[in-house]
Amino acid sequence: AVIVYRLPWTWKCSKLLMKFIHAGLNTIAMILGIVSMVAVFEYHNARNIPNMYSLHSWIGLTAVVFYSLQLFLGFAVFLLPFAPVPLRAALMPIHVYSGLTIFATVIATALMGITEKLIFSLKNPAYSASPPEATFVNCLGLLLVIFGALILWMASRSHWKRPPEENAKVLRPIGGTPEGAEAESTMTGGSNADKPDLRINSEAARKQNLKLDEAGQRSTM
Amino acid sequence: AVIVYRLPWTWKCSKLLMKFIHAGLNTIAMILGIVSMVAVFEYHNARNIPNMYSLHSWIGLTAVVFYSLQLFLGFAVFLLPFAPVPLRAALMPIHVYSGLTIFATVIATALMGITEKLIFSLKNPAYSASPPEATFVNCLGLLLVIFGALILWMASRSHWKRPPEENAKVLRPIGGTPEGAEAESTMTGGSNADKPDLRINSEAARKQNLKLDEAGQRSTM
Repeated sequence: AVIVYRLPWTWKCSKLLMKFIHAGLNTIAMILGIVSMVAVFEYHNARNIPNMYSLHSWIGLTAVVFYSLQLFLGFAVFLLPFAPVPLRAALMPIHVYSGLTIFATVIATALMGITEKLIFSLKNPAYSASPPEATFVNCLGLLLVIFGALILWMASRSHWKRPPEENAKVLRPIGGTPEGAEAESTMTGGSNADKPDLRINSEAARKQNLKLDEAGQRSTM
Repeated sequence: AVIVYRLPWTWKCSKLLMKFIHAGLNTIAMILGIVSMVAVFEYHNARNIPNMYSLHSWIGLTAVVFYSLQLFLGFAVFLLPFAPVPLRAALMPIHVYSGLTIFATVIATALMGITEKLIFSLKNPAYSASPPEATFVNCLGLLLVIFGALILWMASRSHWKRPPEENAKVLRPIGGTPEGAEAESTMTGGSNADKPDLRINSEAARKQNLKLDEAGQRSTM
């Protein structure tokens, strides 16, 4: 879900379809997260283990709360057609930052959970004796870190963003209408509002391009 | 060290001074890291605790190895005057990404270490009984996550980057020489190489600006 906008094969999809994929995958992840949290609480209660005492649980619950907020706000602002374009543009960098931070926090939580589980479950031989299970699960933890690093790399590469053709074309000093304007872009396309200014001088165009980049690239399309 | 380039009061400093502060703080951190690792190994050996069995130690050592590499490469490429500008520009996004990823990984390692320590040290009452120490240290762990999130926010905000005046001025279609060109910028200033092209058309200038942005903004100044 994090990198759905970074996969070149999705650049041909309509913006709305990509939003649905992004929101859909995140909704599935949220449901799985809730199911697993219920499982944890029931397991604890069945075994008379206290709930919510560990740092793992504190940070994990915080992440889930922020994830729910992120999902709800993302749905309300970016998927429903009511939010005005400036609000979308202002919230997009925050949405991207929170998404990536929550993603990293969830990985940290998983690593803490793995650590706890290894300490609690491996008794004879203990975790510190490095039985094969310990080595195996340590490798899984290391793979989790590598996975997180790869996803953050893909998500933060600007050349893996959707190509910015539309903005660039609109802002060209010498005419030409934006190509590939999709049905939903009339609803959310802030760049179309610049059409009357096609003859603005090149310096202003450059500045505006940079400004659009600053405001969370293509956040409003 | 991570955010030294993002503090507005440093924008007035010379680029070289900022590089020295950045490299110096990271070197101090590296030395402290090595001292603490030696302490850990000696503590383990003195108490007959095995070394390097836990996921915490695996990920921590990986992070330290990458941190050393990062420090060494950063010193060789960005501080010494030998690396050519295109190499600096190509490596800067990787340097930034690795720095932030290592930072996040170190925080995750600390959280795992805190979890381990709480489980091993709190015995009567146990961690699961939530004694005051457990709550206190959990709060410290949560503060560590908040600290990490704040640093990543500051490091990833484009408007907290050093102002891009120099590049912008050089690439203006209508003349004007770059102001504030510092002594060391002749050594590392790739943007000055564009001077002969001052009359390039605006579209090319805009593209070039974007390209410079892509290549790790102001990495070569």
